[in-house]
Amino acid sequence: MIKAELGREFFTTRTVAEALAGFRPARRTPAEPVPLDGALHRVPAAPVAAPHALPGFARSTVDGYAVRAADTYGVSEGLPGYLDVTGDVSMGAAPRVPVAAGTAVSMPTGGVLPPGADAVVMIEYTQQVMPGTIEVVRPVAPGEGVVRADEDAVAGAELVPAGRPLRAQDLAMLAAAGVRSVSVHARPRVTVFSTGDEVVPPETATLRPGQVRDATAVALAALVTQAGGDPVHGGIVPDDAEALETALRAALPSSDLVVISAGSSVGARDETAGVVRRLGTIWCHGIAVKPGKPTLLAECAGVPVIGLPGNPRSALVVFRLLGVPLVHLVGGCTAPPPEPSVRARLARDLPSAAGRLDVVQVRVADGVATPVFGPSALLSVLTAADGYVIIPGEATGLDAGAEVDVTIYS
Amino acid sequence: MIKAELGREFFTTRTVAEALAGFRPARRTPAEPVPLDGALHRVPAAPVAAPHALPGFARSTVDGYAVRAADTYGVSEGLPGYLDVTGDVSMGAAPRVPVAAGTAVSMPTGGVLPPGADAVVMIEYTQQVMPGTIEVVRPVAPGEGVVRADEDAVAGAELVPAGRPLRAQDLAMLAAAGVRSVSVHARPRVTVFSTGDEVVPPETATLRPGQVRDATAVALAALVTQAGGDPVHGGIVPDDAEALETALRAALPSSDLVVISAGSSVGARDETAGVVRRLGTIWCHGIAVKPGKPTLLAECAGVPVIGLPGNPRSALVVFRLLGVPLVHLVGGCTAPPPEPSVRARLARDLPSAAGRLDVVQVRVADGVATPVFGPSALLSVLTAADGYVIIPGEATGLDAGAEVDVTIYS
Repeated sequence: MIKAELGREFFTTRTVAEALAGFRPARRTPAEPVPLDGALHRVPAAPVAAPHALPGFARSTVDGYAVRAADTYGVSEGLPGYLDVTGDVSMGAAPRVPVAAGTAVSMPTGGVLPPGADAVVMIEYTQQVMPGTIEVVRPVAPGEGVVRADEDAVAGAELVPAGRPLRAQDLAMLAAAGVRSVSVHARPRVTVFSTGDEVVPPETATLRPGQVRDATAVALAALVTQAGGDPVHGGIVPDDAEALETALRAALPSSDLVVISAGSSVGARDETAGVVRRLGTIWCHGIAVKPGKPTLLAECAGVPVIGLPGNPRSALVVFRLLGVPLVHLVGGCTAPPPEPSVRARLARDLPSAAGRLDVVQVRVADGVATPVFGPSALLSVLTAADGYVIIPGEATGLDAGAEVDVTIYS
Repeated sequence: MIKAELGREFFTTRTVAEALAGFRPARRTPAEPVPLDGALHRVPAAPVAAPHALPGFARSTVDGYAVRAADTYGVSEGLPGYLDVTGDVSMGAAPRVPVAAGTAVSMPTGGVLPPGADAVVMIEYTQQVMPGTIEVVRPVAPGEGVVRADEDAVAGAELVPAGRPLRAQDLAMLAAAGVRSVSVHARPRVTVFSTGDEVVPPETATLRPGQVRDATAVALAALVTQAGGDPVHGGIVPDDAEALETALRAALPSSDLVVISAGSSVGARDETAGVVRRLGTIWCHGIAVKPGKPTLLAECAGVPVIGLPGNPRSALVVFRLLGVPLVHLVGGCTAPPPEPSVRARLARDLPSAAGRLDVVQVRVADGVATPVFGPSALLSVLTAADGYVIIPGEATGLDAGAEVDVTIYS
C-alpha cells in the first residue's frame, strides 16, 4: 500500500492481487426462479438435490439378453451355454416376463431389467440356435450390462452445486430428474456511466471538433453481459461534480454495481473521486497496473463502485481484470470458468517496471505471440490483438522466446 | 475409411478429423443487420470499414502543454526553456488559439491539438514560473504526447473482419466510428429432435416404469445457443420410421441444421439412418470416437443433419466435437475463439484403443486431472467432470503423470 499525491489529492494505490483479494463487497443479488431452458450459465443460489433416484430403474446399457449371471458362468466359444428366450422388453415399458433360471429375455439398450435378471449379455456374444433358444459364448458377472436404479444419482444427492454457472450437462441432469426450475442469483444490475465533456452518444452522425463518440459504454455493457450481469445504460455525464453526484445518487438504489468510465484528465479524475467519497468510502484510488493506473474502487450505500480510466482501451483492460470478478462476486458466482487461453512464445523482449502488473496486447499466430504496441488512447491496439499477456508485478519483463499464457479475447 | 457392417446395414466410419475436415456443407445463413448493443458475439457477414479517420483530430494523450517541439530542443533540468502560455483547450471543443513559436497552450488529456503545435509536454516536466509563463525541463520530439487524426484508423480501414465473432473491443471501435448497425450472419436455426419410445417430456412429474425424461434436448439447445445458434425444439419422436420422416420433412425447410438424438438401440439407429437416406445423402455413419461411435452425418435438401447417439452423455460429447463446429460453419463463423482449457497432470494411466479418439471426463484440482469413469449411460459422469481430455486416435493411451490439456466445460 503506497500513499501518493496526485495534484491536490492523496490516494491509496493497490496491486491487482490486493484489489481482487481485499475488495470484497458483501452485496449479493437475491435468488429468483428460472425455467431450465433459460438457465444456461445462470448461477444456482443453492445446491439442487435429486428428488428421486436416477435413472429410477435398473437399465440395460447394451442390446442383448437379460439373464441370471450364474447361468453364464463357465461358458465359452467352445462350450456355450443355452438359454430359453421367454420374452422381450420394449423401450419405455415395464417388462412383461421375469427371468427365471435357465431363461433369458431379449433387451434393447435402455430397457428395464426384468425381475430375476442381474446382468445383460451383449447380443454379440450370443447366437440364436433355434427359435426360442440362444447360445451364450461369454460369461457375465452380476451387474454387467446394467446401470443400477440409483447409479446416476441417489435420491437427495446434489445434482448441481451452488455458485457454479450451469453448464449444458447440468441442465441435462436436472431435466432427467424432472427439475423444471432452478433458484438462481438474479443477474447483477450494472449501471454504466460515461463521463466527459468531449463524449457524445455513439449515434452522433457528425462530430464537432474535439468530440468523440462514447465507445466505452457499449463495450462495457458487452463485458457485463458476458460476465452474467445485466447492463443498465447510465448515459453520458459532463465533467461536472454536481451532475455526476446527481446521476450516481439516482443510480445507486437500483444498481448492484456502478461503473464510471471517468474523464481521463487529472481534473476529471479528481472530480469522480470527490463525488464518490461524498457518497461512500473509497477503498483505493490507483492500481499498480499498466494501462489502467487511475482506477478507483469504492462502496457507496452498499453498492460497489468502480471508476475506470477515461480512455476506452485502459477502461476495457481494467474492467476485464477487476470489473468482471466484481460482477461474478455480486452475482454469487464462486466458480467462474477460466477464460480461453493458448500457450505461445514471445516474439520479442517485453520490458516492464517491477511492482506493476503489465497487460500487453498480442497477436497470436503459429504459436508465436507478437506484442501490439501503441498509446493507450488507441482502441485499434485492442481490436488488432487476439489476446493479452500478463507480466506479473514482481517481474521486470519477459524475454523473447519465453513461453507465455495468452488469454484469448472472446 | 472403413466399411463395416452393423446388423443388416453397411456404413462408413470416419475419424473425427476426417469429419471436421471433410463434412463441409455449403449452407450459410443469410446476413441481417443488428444494432451494436445486440452485436456481442455475432458474426459479421462482411468486413466493416471506417467511415472516417479516427480519432478524427490530432489529440493529446497527456495533461500538459501543446508546443512546437523545436522550442524544447536542448532544454534540461539545469537549463529549462521558457514559453508563454497563450491559452487553454477545453475538452470537446475546438482550440481557441494557435501555438506560435515561443508559446504554449494548456492541454487536457484528449483535447484537440491546436494549430501550430506538433507535440504536448507532460505537465510533470513543466513548472509555472510566473502567471502566463512556464519553464520546460525536458525536450519533446514532434508527435510526442499526441495521437494523429488517423492513428486509430484511416478512413476506409477494416475495423472488424468478416467471420470472427464480435468482441467487446470491436463494439467499442465500431461505436467510436459511428457505426450503429452491423451486417451479421443470422443465427443458424438448429432443430433438435429427441427420439425414443421411452423418452417423455422433462415436465413429466411421475415416470412410468422404463420411461426417462428427455435430458438431451435442453442440453443440446444450450450448446446450440452457446455456439451462436438459435435452437428450435423439435420435440420427441417415437421409434417409428414414418413418424421420424414426417418430422424431419417438416423441419428441413425452416432449419439450417437438424440434430437428432437417435434411439440408442441398434434398431433405432438403423431407423434414423434409413429415414435420413430417403431424404438425402449420408456422409458417414459411425465415428471413431468413444463415446459416440453411432454418430451419423448427412445432408438432406441442403440442410446438414447430425444423428447423435441415444444416450445423453454420448450425445453431448459428440455434439461438442462435431455439432458445435457445424453451427459455426453454417453461421459463417470462421474464427471461433478457443474453448477454455487448463494444463494438468494425469492422476492415472489412461488406456485407449489406437485408431479411435477417446474423450475422457476429468475432474481438475491443484493441477491434477483425475478421470471420472462410468458407463456412457450415466449423465453424472459429465456433471461430476470439470472438463475432458482427448486421447488422439494414433495414441494407445496416456501415462499417469503425463501433461495434458483439459478442455474446461463452460
